[in-house]
Amino acid sequence: MPLAVIKIGGNILDDAEQLEKFLTDFAEIPVAKILVHGGGKLASELSVRLGITPQIIHGRRITDAETLKVATMTYAGWVNKNLVAILVAKQCSAIGLSGADACLLPAVKRPATPLDFGFVGDLITENVNTGFLQQLLTANLTPVIAPIAADRNGQLLNVNADTVARTIAEAMAKFYEVDLVYCFEKNGLLLNIDDEHSVIPELNFEKAAHLKQVGVISSGMLPKIDNAFAAIKSGVKKVVIGHAKNIHDLVNGEGNYGTTIRKKI
Amino acid sequence: MPLAVIKIGGNILDDAEQLEKFLTDFAEIPVAKILVHGGGKLASELSVRLGITPQIIHGRRITDAETLKVATMTYAGWVNKNLVAILVAKQCSAIGLSGADACLLPAVKRPATPLDFGFVGDLITENVNTGFLQQLLTANLTPVIAPIAADRNGQLLNVNADTVARTIAEAMAKFYEVDLVYCFEKNGLLLNIDDEHSVIPELNFEKAAHLKQVGVISSGMLPKIDNAFAAIKSGVKKVVIGHAKNIHDLVNGEGNYGTTIRKKI
Repeated sequence: MPLAVIKIGGNILDDAEQLEKFLTDFAEIPVAKILVHGGGKLASELSVRLGITPQIIHGRRITDAETLKVATMTYAGWVNKNLVAILVAKQCSAIGLSGADACLLPAVKRPATPLDFGFVGDLITENVNTGFLQQLLTANLTPVIAPIAADRNGQLLNVNADTVARTIAEAMAKFYEVDLVYCFEKNGLLLNIDDEHSVIPELNFEKAAHLKQVGVISSGMLPKIDNAFAAIKSGVKKVVIGHAKNIHDLVNGEGNYGTTIRKKI
Repeated sequence: MPLAVIKIGGNILDDAEQLEKFLTDFAEIPVAKILVHGGGKLASELSVRLGITPQIIHGRRITDAETLKVATMTYAGWVNKNLVAILVAKQCSAIGLSGADACLLPAVKRPATPLDFGFVGDLITENVNTGFLQQLLTANLTPVIAPIAADRNGQLLNVNADTVARTIAEAMAKFYEVDLVYCFEKNGLLLNIDDEHSVIPELNFEKAAHLKQVGVISSGMLPKIDNAFAAIKSGVKKVVIGHAKNIHDLVNGEGNYGTTIRKKI
């Protein structure tokens, strides 16, 4: 049975018009689906209003106690519940969850060496509560998942939303034909970052290695691509990276839009 | 089959030591259970830090757009996910939900006349998604519910946590023998507000009417008592109001602690 695990990026969340269109399209996807989201600019904006200075080391945000609170409030609170309420109004029976709920995504706090990221968690694919997700999907519910998890001591932890989507896709690949779709504000992996028409339609491991070397795959795109290959290696059928506005085509796999990564190409 | 619907009050949430004890006790309750919570002082504290002035008219807080955001972030975000993470660490399979999730508590925005409370919702007992709650309880999951709901247009709404507990208790009374337990920082309904030993052990409608007249039941206690009688009228077996530290006795119904309201006494 097919299952679409869809990650929606922050820039779409921040744009009311694009978000409205995306949620309308998402609600209409006829197959079983799971939505994973981040928090967009909201967390940063709230931090600024509260006078919390973001600490960034090696391009990674350090999650101190205050930042964790802001992340939990915005991701698992405001963003998650708004997405759910809007989807329910569009006749999509959404249920908002964090990784802490029903032990969905057990996490471990990232070791403090070589660099202490603070309250940041890493997920273990084997420990995902797939039985619970199957139960929800069987009841025609659509999980909407915020990137907050907890460790076995009850400590909440910030987790990367791209990784949440990948981990869920991998874990569910034992039971479903899983497509993992990264939706964001670009048309896909672009050969030229300034040209939205330069989408690379298909990607394999060798091509990706080359594109990393020449700098076409860098910064924000790097974790998405690494997650994509990890997912394929773990049994996910297909990973597609593309613009949120084309979500139906990306999920249907017609290949007219976005960058597709498949097993053995 | 017995079901305990337990509301935990704000003052307990604000006290780390009392909360820890309560959650340990709660996790050990052997029957099916649902926890409903508010947000304690956190929402007010966050509002102050954000420079939002609380508007209070006739003792009721007006929920403007900013206040709704703060309520959703604190109740459905920080408080809900922390309670869940701590309960899961105590081997209680908790799942955090708002009324918006899975259309659990469909709400209607309160009419703007005679007084516009802003983004405040009223619940309809008949519309509670009891099937979903039964499914969770059957799977040995413990719902932990934040007092945020949504209307049919996808608008989030603030709802009263005491009323959430009552409404869920009433709706579930069709399928379970429901005990509704209001836990807070007092030993029960006190004849003398300054004497924790003056608990009124049992209450019936006539006695309550008299105690309202003489002012023993007033302010914060009034909605609890009104909710209690409404619940009994709608088929809830028993309502107990008492101190969170005595939760086991309050749920077991041994009657040594708290104020109990039963059908026909």
